[in-house]
Amino acid sequence: SANYKVAVLPGDGIGPEVMAEALKVLDKVQSEFGFTLELSHFDVGGVAIDNHGSPLPAATLAGCEAADAVLFGSVGGPKWEHLAPNDQPERGALLPLRGHFKLFCNMRPARIYEGLEDFSPLRADISARGFDIVCMRELTGGIYFGQPKGREGEGAQEKAFDTEVYHRYEIERIARLGFEAAQGRRGIVTSVDKANVLQASILWREVVNEVAKDYPDVTLNHIYIDNATMQLIKDPSQFDVMLCSNLFGDIISDEMAMLTGSMGLLPSVSLNDQGFGLYEPAGGSAPDIAGKGIANPVAQILSAALMLRYSFKEEAAALAIERAISETLSEGYFSGDLYKADAKHPVQTTVQMGEHIANRI
Amino acid sequence: SANYKVAVLPGDGIGPEVMAEALKVLDKVQSEFGFTLELSHFDVGGVAIDNHGSPLPAATLAGCEAADAVLFGSVGGPKWEHLAPNDQPERGALLPLRGHFKLFCNMRPARIYEGLEDFSPLRADISARGFDIVCMRELTGGIYFGQPKGREGEGAQEKAFDTEVYHRYEIERIARLGFEAAQGRRGIVTSVDKANVLQASILWREVVNEVAKDYPDVTLNHIYIDNATMQLIKDPSQFDVMLCSNLFGDIISDEMAMLTGSMGLLPSVSLNDQGFGLYEPAGGSAPDIAGKGIANPVAQILSAALMLRYSFKEEAAALAIERAISETLSEGYFSGDLYKADAKHPVQTTVQMGEHIANRI
Ligand SMILES: CC(C)[C@H](C(=O)O)[C@@H](O)C(=O)O
Ligand SMILES: CC(C)[C@H](C(=O)O)[C@@H](O)C(=O)O
Repeated sequence: SANYKVAVLPGDGIGPEVMAEALKVLDKVQSEFGFTLELSHFDVGGVAIDNHGSPLPAATLAGCEAADAVLFGSVGGPKWEHLAPNDQPERGALLPLRGHFKLFCNMRPARIYEGLEDFSPLRADISARGFDIVCMRELTGGIYFGQPKGREGEGAQEKAFDTEVYHRYEIERIARLGFEAAQGRRGIVTSVDKANVLQASILWREVVNEVAKDYPDVTLNHIYIDNATMQLIKDPSQFDVMLCSNLFGDIISDEMAMLTGSMGLLPSVSLNDQGFGLYEPAGGSAPDIAGKGIANPVAQILSAALMLRYSFKEEAAALAIERAISETLSEGYFSGDLYKADAKHPVQTTVQMGEHIANRI
Repeated sequence: SANYKVAVLPGDGIGPEVMAEALKVLDKVQSEFGFTLELSHFDVGGVAIDNHGSPLPAATLAGCEAADAVLFGSVGGPKWEHLAPNDQPERGALLPLRGHFKLFCNMRPARIYEGLEDFSPLRADISARGFDIVCMRELTGGIYFGQPKGREGEGAQEKAFDTEVYHRYEIERIARLGFEAAQGRRGIVTSVDKANVLQASILWREVVNEVAKDYPDVTLNHIYIDNATMQLIKDPSQFDVMLCSNLFGDIISDEMAMLTGSMGLLPSVSLNDQGFGLYEPAGGSAPDIAGKGIANPVAQILSAALMLRYSFKEEAAALAIERAISETLSEGYFSGDLYKADAKHPVQTTVQMGEHIANRI
């Protein structure tokens, strides 16, 4: 039977707590669906700085290289905020991992779950319409990695600079994935750019228009980033797939996550062209609630389901996890972040949420 | 008595209609407050393309140079959208004007007016808390104007690039204005950057921290752009002055404008270090309602008030206009964009709104 190697990187804050529940659920599916998961644990982020002096130690990187996929928790916290930007857990772990494994394709789904509309910070009539969007973000190009990047000069004339750069092939491959995602959804791609100011956006728009010709069944719209942040708030239900550069995807994906009001439910996928991927919750390490056993593990468990789907092609197992999560939520079991006074059951702990889901596999 | 020269650039769409009302109000204050305004009208934007072949004709630029301030309407519309980005009204008029007159300081206030909370797209409990924010945006630097900017190569390797660059002096002067604005307000500056990724942001943060030492009465916070778009939605009332680079200010100012739900009330100011300024409404040319006489002229009239305040130091006249606007709104006179079923008066036209305000000077 199939055997998959997973590098497990729980990280900081609530990472280890929610990761434990994801592993519990994965353990359940591997016996049910007849495959085996070979897990290796590695330090990453702040805990790796503390234990090994680096947010991404060589052993962790080697462990990821030896694996078929990376299940990532979250990194960062106040303890490491005094460090120089390059040494901080988020930047020092995530960016090198993305670059090293060429994880150019980042998918961040965000939707309002039925019954959870009240948690959205949007006006009731807007959140009642709901929304279901995937942000398809280019993750290894643009201003994040573009060269030159640096600082020079002195005194008042001292300057610091970064380069926003996109190559045709980079735009083309992420655009294709955007159109393919739209084909399996509602058939709309909205490409986000700033083509009225940026040369990189002008090329972006051109290439996206060319790629669109191969997907006549998909509707393509273009929108400027400033207008996109407005339209998302005014009527998020108009969007299906939002196709974004690295920087604009960073902004748009966070905005749409906040608009759901239930960030604890949002997973994210970063893939390379070999199907190797890194899977992580959208929410962050939440140091304020870490160690209390109250964090919502659903985003981490959903991330594990997406790993089964995208890296291992174990669709049935992925669906089983997603169904178990839907059942748990629709039966009224919620962790504190999504708890309402009129809920059927008392507030559930992280462990209880994990057990409800594992038991429903 | 003082005489001020104003270049009036109504532009496209609703621009000419709302400009007519601003001029009506300015005419009223000049007699009341004992100064004279010498107005010269010039084409800009799409209408200038149609009449003179360029969105910013030489005569318009010369007219602005001969003036003490520019009162700008709005530019753009579907008629000119097929043009190359560089030739389009928005880009072809606004960016050269900003660059030519070195209008590095852009202030965009956004607030929820009492009684208009329902128009905000935010959940009722969030909009009920209200907010009152000024986006202090650097307007002549960053990735908008940074060099090199271009395109090279062929085939799959063809690339397009832009340069995000900030000099210490550019950051320092806009930061000072941000801190000064906060001193006259609630004393909080939130500086928006992406210092976990961008070198330009690392310098930005350093310089802002240094400038902050001269303003010990102001609280300084730093926030990443992605988190800023989230926090604005979650709780806009936490912000006072948001200090932004050119690109991040473009995004943040539009997001906050949308969050008010009353974009027709928002003016904007772009200044150079001589006090020369360009004053324009935040909303855009709104081609869908142009020519119908229904657009809200308040943002244009407020822009005129800010011109009196910032470029001409006619504080009393500026206050008189602002008071007349407040009275008009609080007496229940609204154009269609802000009309509610339970309003005291029927929907007011653009001209009626202008008259209410002029009559209350
Ligand atoms: C931590 C940071 C470098 C990262 C990014 O900007 O990509 C984060 O915000 C994200 O979206 O994953
Ligand atoms: C039209 C465009 C170039 C401009 C900008 O990006 O600055 C506009 O969005 C604005 O905010 O004034």
